[in-house]
Amino acid sequence: MSVTFAALADPTRRAILARLTEGEAAVTELAEPFAMSLPAVSRHLKVLGRAGLITRSREGQWRPCRLEAAPLKAVSDWTGNYRRFWEERFDRLDALLQELQENEQARDAQTDSDR
Amino acid sequence: MSVTFAALADPTRRAILARLTEGEAAVTELAEPFAMSLPAVSRHLKVLGRAGLITRSREGQWRPCRLEAAPLKAVSDWTGNYRRFWEERFDRLDALLQELQENEQARDAQTDSDR
Repeated sequence: MSVTFAALADPTRRAILARLTEGEAAVTELAEPFAMSLPAVSRHLKVLGRAGLITRSREGQWRPCRLEAAPLKAVSDWTGNYRRFWEERFDRLDALLQELQENEQARDAQTDSDR
Repeated sequence: MSVTFAALADPTRRAILARLTEGEAAVTELAEPFAMSLPAVSRHLKVLGRAGLITRSREGQWRPCRLEAAPLKAVSDWTGNYRRFWEERFDRLDALLQELQENEQARDAQTDSDR
């Protein structure tokens, strides 16, 4: 998990993963949108490869990169341990909002009956 | 997101978050299970704090740390962009497994009819 999180802690590497959701791509294609040298992109791909987030085909000259989503499932599953905490937080905000609305309605009703 | 992922890329910091799911805790309590010096734990808490993953109460001497799950919701939402990729992968494995089982059943049926 540490290796996965470290690989994801870079906006260029996350952008490469996003690009690969559209399909396999060669290093040159991946380099284009970033105005980056090929060696710089290759270094990012190595980090992604070590984290198991991409694989590279070994066939022929083209050697496209391909997204591997299994480590992202592991990240998603891990965040699941904390779901109840952010849901509780939103539930508390919901309750607060509802209370504010009820107070406002009560005030409006009071104003109407005062007329 | 980069700050969040960098903060999560350390097993001690993830263990601190896991501990905080049980409730607020002071730095000394958080240091105990890790056989770590207080300054070392404080450095980890600073990284978690900068990422918005914990807050520290400013009241009194105790100043407990508290889990803040909102950045983890952001991580969970981000992984959602990749869900169809890991599900596709598991669907393909399922299909492969089913094919293997059907082949095996067909072979068993053939063996039975040969008897």
